[in-house]
Amino acid sequence: MTLSAVHTRSDAYPTRLPEESWRERQDPVVWGRWTPEAPLTRAQTEAFAETGFLVLENLFTAQEIDRLRDESLRLRSGETGLRPDNVVTEPGSDAVRTIFRLEDESPFFNRVARDARVAGVVQFLLDDALYLHQSRLNYKPGFTGKEFYWHSDFETWHAEDGMARMRAISASILLTDNDALNGPLMLMPGSHRHYISCAGETPEDNHKSSLKQQEVGVPSPDALTRMAERFGIAYGAGKAGTVVLFDCNTMHGSNGNITPFPRSNAFFVYNAWSNRVGAPFAAARPRPAFLSSRDPEAPLDIVAGPIR
Amino acid sequence: MTLSAVHTRSDAYPTRLPEESWRERQDPVVWGRWTPEAPLTRAQTEAFAETGFLVLENLFTAQEIDRLRDESLRLRSGETGLRPDNVVTEPGSDAVRTIFRLEDESPFFNRVARDARVAGVVQFLLDDALYLHQSRLNYKPGFTGKEFYWHSDFETWHAEDGMARMRAISASILLTDNDALNGPLMLMPGSHRHYISCAGETPEDNHKSSLKQQEVGVPSPDALTRMAERFGIAYGAGKAGTVVLFDCNTMHGSNGNITPFPRSNAFFVYNAWSNRVGAPFAAARPRPAFLSSRDPEAPLDIVAGPIR
Repeated sequence: MTLSAVHTRSDAYPTRLPEESWRERQDPVVWGRWTPEAPLTRAQTEAFAETGFLVLENLFTAQEIDRLRDESLRLRSGETGLRPDNVVTEPGSDAVRTIFRLEDESPFFNRVARDARVAGVVQFLLDDALYLHQSRLNYKPGFTGKEFYWHSDFETWHAEDGMARMRAISASILLTDNDALNGPLMLMPGSHRHYISCAGETPEDNHKSSLKQQEVGVPSPDALTRMAERFGIAYGAGKAGTVVLFDCNTMHGSNGNITPFPRSNAFFVYNAWSNRVGAPFAAARPRPAFLSSRDPEAPLDIVAGPIR
Repeated sequence: MTLSAVHTRSDAYPTRLPEESWRERQDPVVWGRWTPEAPLTRAQTEAFAETGFLVLENLFTAQEIDRLRDESLRLRSGETGLRPDNVVTEPGSDAVRTIFRLEDESPFFNRVARDARVAGVVQFLLDDALYLHQSRLNYKPGFTGKEFYWHSDFETWHAEDGMARMRAISASILLTDNDALNGPLMLMPGSHRHYISCAGETPEDNHKSSLKQQEVGVPSPDALTRMAERFGIAYGAGKAGTVVLFDCNTMHGSNGNITPFPRSNAFFVYNAWSNRVGAPFAAARPRPAFLSSRDPEAPLDIVAGPIR
């Protein structure tokens, strides 16, 4: 693989205009060419291309899953001394809801982010070197977990971070057992082939409110209804240790959770090296670096073998 | 069947005391004796006794289901002239969320309430004449449907309405297709055999806030966690027209709903005639009649045959 040049700055995905519009995707979903040596089966590769997501089970050993959980508890406890601007708390409390820049906060999660079983698969799908555009540890408590409304990540990354092309994939590593009832990640299969250009200008410092409740960069109820009727709604569930990969433009969201069972995951956004971000396409200033890594020094060094 | 006397006023289920406590149920779940002539199979009867709920599919014809939906839309539109004290609106809007006393607001739903396919089954399970303790049409919109927190109906009906014994069953007739993701009724199977006596005194006019957000008569997170770990969480889903019966003491609740698909149901609470309510067991005054029918004139006249 060679490191290709950064794309030119023409805007393939205009958004935040006065009117909402529905456009076609301009980019491949699977950039790599499947061969028998690929880290996914042909059926898995085709399913990802078709639906915009893929659930991978049994990637990690029981010991590795225990360590994933232990390390996430340790980080959330605060004992490791988190950088304040990497932490978001639950509205109305100081319980930790999100820890950003996981690869900087934890050597263990730094290793997880570079694991061949996840990053190697993403590298095959994107056919380029990778870097982390964003990473975070999410914790949605039992009883009071709040919903996260429908959105395409790419729309925000394009408008506010300056990501030119749809050549990024998110990996959510479940740290708790997740089923249909405790607020799982819901996805509209096939929605990733369509781009909803959202209405409305980006307010100054939009990310300060959008992390708790998104208001701009959200499709209209009418567009969401059309999408849901056309594509249906699936969800990514499984035991702790399951990995859900999804394309940067897959429409997704999650319901609140009154069950006693919390939901937690480690979330890594891999962007193609050739797709490194530039000036935002529809915002005055880029979002801060904890949301959008702007100057990666080098592509990720992907590592095979067990995590110790 | 004979109409048995109203129970004496000893309190089998004390609640709203300073400390929460976990007590055993003092009443049968299935009061009738199963015979081959019963309107449920033996397996269905045993499942209801065991789990505290039962999902009945294909009770109604396609035409009847169309009429159920049409009549619910007509009522929610306001064109029939609803009594203001029978209506609850969505917080922050005037969209109709609940219409109480459905049997008074609609001759059609009055007939539905007395249908042998639902009321006849409940009469077998409770082995007594029936009346409606409460009825309502619920509408939970898509995108913004709010959660309804865990509770046992009986705890409130006992404390605030003066219902002496666990001899009441709710029937929820689904008016929209309902699946795991659009805020279905969640139930803890087996929880109905245990009574959580809730901590805290009943405030004056508690029902005015508890209909929107319940605060008293709610088990602690610890009790709910113990119950959920012991019994698990099931949910009542199905196509429009499906009926979910559940015991008055089954712990239940529902999550919010960000999907575009609304959820609506017609809800009838059947109480045994011998279990008619008296003075509240733990409140200064009984709740108003739209929540708790206090002077039923006569038992329900149950009618067999298609609804026209």
